[in-house]
Amino acid sequence: MIETDVLIIGSGPAGYTAGLYATRAGLHTTLFTGPNVGGQLIYTHEIENFPGFDKISGIELTDIFHKQNQQVGTTIFNEIITEINLKTHPFSFKSETGGGTAKSVIIATGSKARWLNVEGEEKFKGSGISVCATCDGFFYRRKTVAVIGGGNTALYEALFLSKVADKVYLLNKFDVFSGEKLLQEQVLQNEKIVIYKNADVLSFQGNERLEKLVWKNTQTNQEYELFVQGVFEAVGTVPQIDLVKDQLQITSAGYIETNKRTMETSVPGVFACGDVQEEKYRQAVIAAGSGCIAALGAEKFLLDFH
Amino acid sequence: MIETDVLIIGSGPAGYTAGLYATRAGLHTTLFTGPNVGGQLIYTHEIENFPGFDKISGIELTDIFHKQNQQVGTTIFNEIITEINLKTHPFSFKSETGGGTAKSVIIATGSKARWLNVEGEEKFKGSGISVCATCDGFFYRRKTVAVIGGGNTALYEALFLSKVADKVYLLNKFDVFSGEKLLQEQVLQNEKIVIYKNADVLSFQGNERLEKLVWKNTQTNQEYELFVQGVFEAVGTVPQIDLVKDQLQITSAGYIETNKRTMETSVPGVFACGDVQEEKYRQAVIAAGSGCIAALGAEKFLLDFH
Repeated sequence: MIETDVLIIGSGPAGYTAGLYATRAGLHTTLFTGPNVGGQLIYTHEIENFPGFDKISGIELTDIFHKQNQQVGTTIFNEIITEINLKTHPFSFKSETGGGTAKSVIIATGSKARWLNVEGEEKFKGSGISVCATCDGFFYRRKTVAVIGGGNTALYEALFLSKVADKVYLLNKFDVFSGEKLLQEQVLQNEKIVIYKNADVLSFQGNERLEKLVWKNTQTNQEYELFVQGVFEAVGTVPQIDLVKDQLQITSAGYIETNKRTMETSVPGVFACGDVQEEKYRQAVIAAGSGCIAALGAEKFLLDFH
Repeated sequence: MIETDVLIIGSGPAGYTAGLYATRAGLHTTLFTGPNVGGQLIYTHEIENFPGFDKISGIELTDIFHKQNQQVGTTIFNEIITEINLKTHPFSFKSETGGGTAKSVIIATGSKARWLNVEGEEKFKGSGISVCATCDGFFYRRKTVAVIGGGNTALYEALFLSKVADKVYLLNKFDVFSGEKLLQEQVLQNEKIVIYKNADVLSFQGNERLEKLVWKNTQTNQEYELFVQGVFEAVGTVPQIDLVKDQLQITSAGYIETNKRTMETSVPGVFACGDVQEEKYRQAVIAAGSGCIAALGAEKFLLDFH
């Protein structure tokens, strides 16, 4: 039976930064990593825009965050919170192997990759279709692959895969990329990457494994087949709110509603930070900043509360 | 004559992070460091709460930020902006040796800690005297410290330090505290905190490191010595708004008014980030996060503008 001052749910940059600050403030702090240590960050092969680091992989940065928390004394469980009750204070929760109470809660459950939801996708998940080039790119050494999307993630993955695969098709549903100009330029200059714009993916086909995809040019309505052994989808993310969606105010877009100055949710003593409450600005350093605000808020809440 | 897409004023974590993101977005980005490269960060001897770094000095971290910007191609001037006109677009500005125009402006001029300006203070800044308990309190584990001030920050820092240090003296120049009643009560109930009222600090003394402070009771005029290893001055901060205070909306507390979700100021195309627009949550990682948001905002503004 855990009794903690601050319960943190999630282990991306938001959760770990909250942990660092809450523990350093002298609060008993318990962090549940959830199913995916590092959150979305681990899908990033090379991060060049986290201030202070020239180049670092998401896995390495996560590892540093983790150790930094261990060092100051955050109690970390590599487990999932299965249930939480935010209706009575102290809040109570259950995890896979136990449970307890918390005087304040910081939700940093982040977001998960979105899928296209088109024909054949379900069949080839894990056998040709992936949402993580860093994780699965290696299996496509010397093969032909497609990346679907137009944001930073799609551009990064195309560049990453160009170092592994023989050929990379980049299919963007829109006419322009939304990712960073610097990345766009690198993609344009890369001879291994072939770009299709206004490309709407309709289906995935194959026998045992993925063999091709079918896409439509949205300007001409003409359909094309593209023979690929691997597909990497980078078409956005879905905030992970299942645990708390009936107990906290949720925005129309499906994110936890927070006061962006304080990271307070609709329940006093419950804070949210990182991508689970931020639709637009999803960058590691922003998530980290919001985690810090949440921890300072929890600290203040506990001070006022006693 | 400079013509730039994004003019960034200031070189703390907010300004440098804004620079990193704006430049990587393919925008021509010009950063003026101002008089104090690194901003408030350089007064922090050892930073342990910037996510990703176990231990780093404020100066080292600033140096990394600076180099990271140079590497991606931010144009950096080690100069002060002396004048700016936000009333017509493109905005125009003058610096010490030149000037130019900017299509968008990010103000990251930060704040300055108010110092007591007493004897010995300059000598022990960073080696015994700090203006940030959240940053440096951890180094005084099991030590004796003094907090100087009577407002919310002083009370809050005394409480924060009481969890870390063995003994905390709280020296308030006045007879009553100006901070919240609730915080006052907590301070009064805290056995580790010893309060001196009407206490005017006269000097700081020591050899290599701070050893003691001298204060005078303003009612009796009697002087006292207090042996402490650390002093935390919490006598206020001053946001650096002089350059723009007549052109942007300013809060009653003297900070630049921003939308905390987007970092927009009252003038379209002008953003503010970091401590110049944040009275309460003054941490490097929060400033960095807000700098990232400001840069993404400037990028969006320029996209819409063209």
